[in-house]
Amino acid sequence: MGDGKMEKNYKLKISYDGTRYYGWEHQPDRETIQGKLETVLSRMCDDEPVDVIGAGRTDAGVHALAMVANVHLDTKLSCEEILTYCNRYLPDDIAVLEVREAAERFHARYKAVGKTYRYTCFDGPVKPVFDRKYYTALTEELDVEKMQQGAAYLEGQHDYKSFCGNSRMKKSTVRIVDTITIRRRKGYVYLTFHGTGFLQNMVRIMAGTLIEVGLGHIAPEQVGEILEARDRKVAGPTAPAKGLCLVKVDY
Amino acid sequence: MGDGKMEKNYKLKISYDGTRYYGWEHQPDRETIQGKLETVLSRMCDDEPVDVIGAGRTDAGVHALAMVANVHLDTKLSCEEILTYCNRYLPDDIAVLEVREAAERFHARYKAVGKTYRYTCFDGPVKPVFDRKYYTALTEELDVEKMQQGAAYLEGQHDYKSFCGNSRMKKSTVRIVDTITIRRRKGYVYLTFHGTGFLQNMVRIMAGTLIEVGLGHIAPEQVGEILEARDRKVAGPTAPAKGLCLVKVDY
Repeated sequence: MGDGKMEKNYKLKISYDGTRYYGWEHQPDRETIQGKLETVLSRMCDDEPVDVIGAGRTDAGVHALAMVANVHLDTKLSCEEILTYCNRYLPDDIAVLEVREAAERFHARYKAVGKTYRYTCFDGPVKPVFDRKYYTALTEELDVEKMQQGAAYLEGQHDYKSFCGNSRMKKSTVRIVDTITIRRRKGYVYLTFHGTGFLQNMVRIMAGTLIEVGLGHIAPEQVGEILEARDRKVAGPTAPAKGLCLVKVDY
Repeated sequence: MGDGKMEKNYKLKISYDGTRYYGWEHQPDRETIQGKLETVLSRMCDDEPVDVIGAGRTDAGVHALAMVANVHLDTKLSCEEILTYCNRYLPDDIAVLEVREAAERFHARYKAVGKTYRYTCFDGPVKPVFDRKYYTALTEELDVEKMQQGAAYLEGQHDYKSFCGNSRMKKSTVRIVDTITIRRRKGYVYLTFHGTGFLQNMVRIMAGTLIEVGLGHIAPEQVGEILEARDRKVAGPTAPAKGLCLVKVDY
């Protein structure tokens, strides 16, 4: 602000296929979603630097149906014009779905009160080709009922240290996971996680652990023990990024 | 046959994302669907050469939900084992959906009595990212009603010379197109063509012409004149391959 500038705060909804990106957060010399957005928006604003603040940082290869971000921009363009400009210059694996003026104090990360992630598996005999970059293929069938039993241990407010990918995490690893639903539709198994916030890799480690339960390698009851152990080494593997999608951010 | 061989004829149903292939038909030193299938099936049959006969030849970049092919194989494997073998060794953008024993005289091309192709456009303001390789993006809105009016001229038995991509075509260019349906679902416009057989590029030239009608560049009535002209130069452009998908083959 100041200097006669007319900065306004904008809320963006963004969809992306994360396959070829090094995740959301900008990194020097690497393609990231945030980096792409900032490049395009900066160009729109006469090369002024812009900071796009995302609701969270998705890992390399993770997708988003509707990531939310905010950005302060000094522009005379309308929201619709900003949307059109972004979609004209962004690559075709990133799309801005919505641009709205937001309150000055709106902050996409701090104001987020909930997030929904969906993890998609396919365990049928013939793997579908067209959406192959958006699911994890399994060669054995998943027992959904067992996965649901295991998932029940992960719901609620807990210390999720066993499900934290950052071994040097100094801050609290306590989080709230409201619901985990697991549904089969033909060969697909969808794991949907809703919570107030997630630790690094947390959804993928929960998914990886529940897949192990579905495959019969871990008993459902063990999931409670894994949670109590507060030790990353006892949980299942981090499920592949390609199966994960950020579906919704609540404010 | 002979030499104590136990060749049987198999009918295959195959799904593929054609994005990175030079079409169905095998070509030396180029990746094709037929080539990939023959390589895998030949390996399965102790490196005996195999000839996979497709119901048709899709162009480079064209997709298939269910291409049908037949192949004579000398193998003791069951149909299910053949399917499993193929899907284990094929790349993840080609999937064998079904393997069945067929009558000795079954020929995927000669016995085909009908084919359904679907051409997908998207004309909404924000282009969806996840299926972006399976539709053609348009920057202006299509008038579906006009497209339907134009499509009506193309139904029936006609000489489709204006819609034939092979300028040196010596054989008859008369074909039967039973139905062309055009439907909108949100930003998507689907053009579905059913006919007994199609000339080279014919569906893409019909789609390209009807898109021109939808954009208001060609009047619906002109489609009848284009058909009568029997001249490729008066029809619309060949629509991009990525929007086309072979949906079904009838026997």
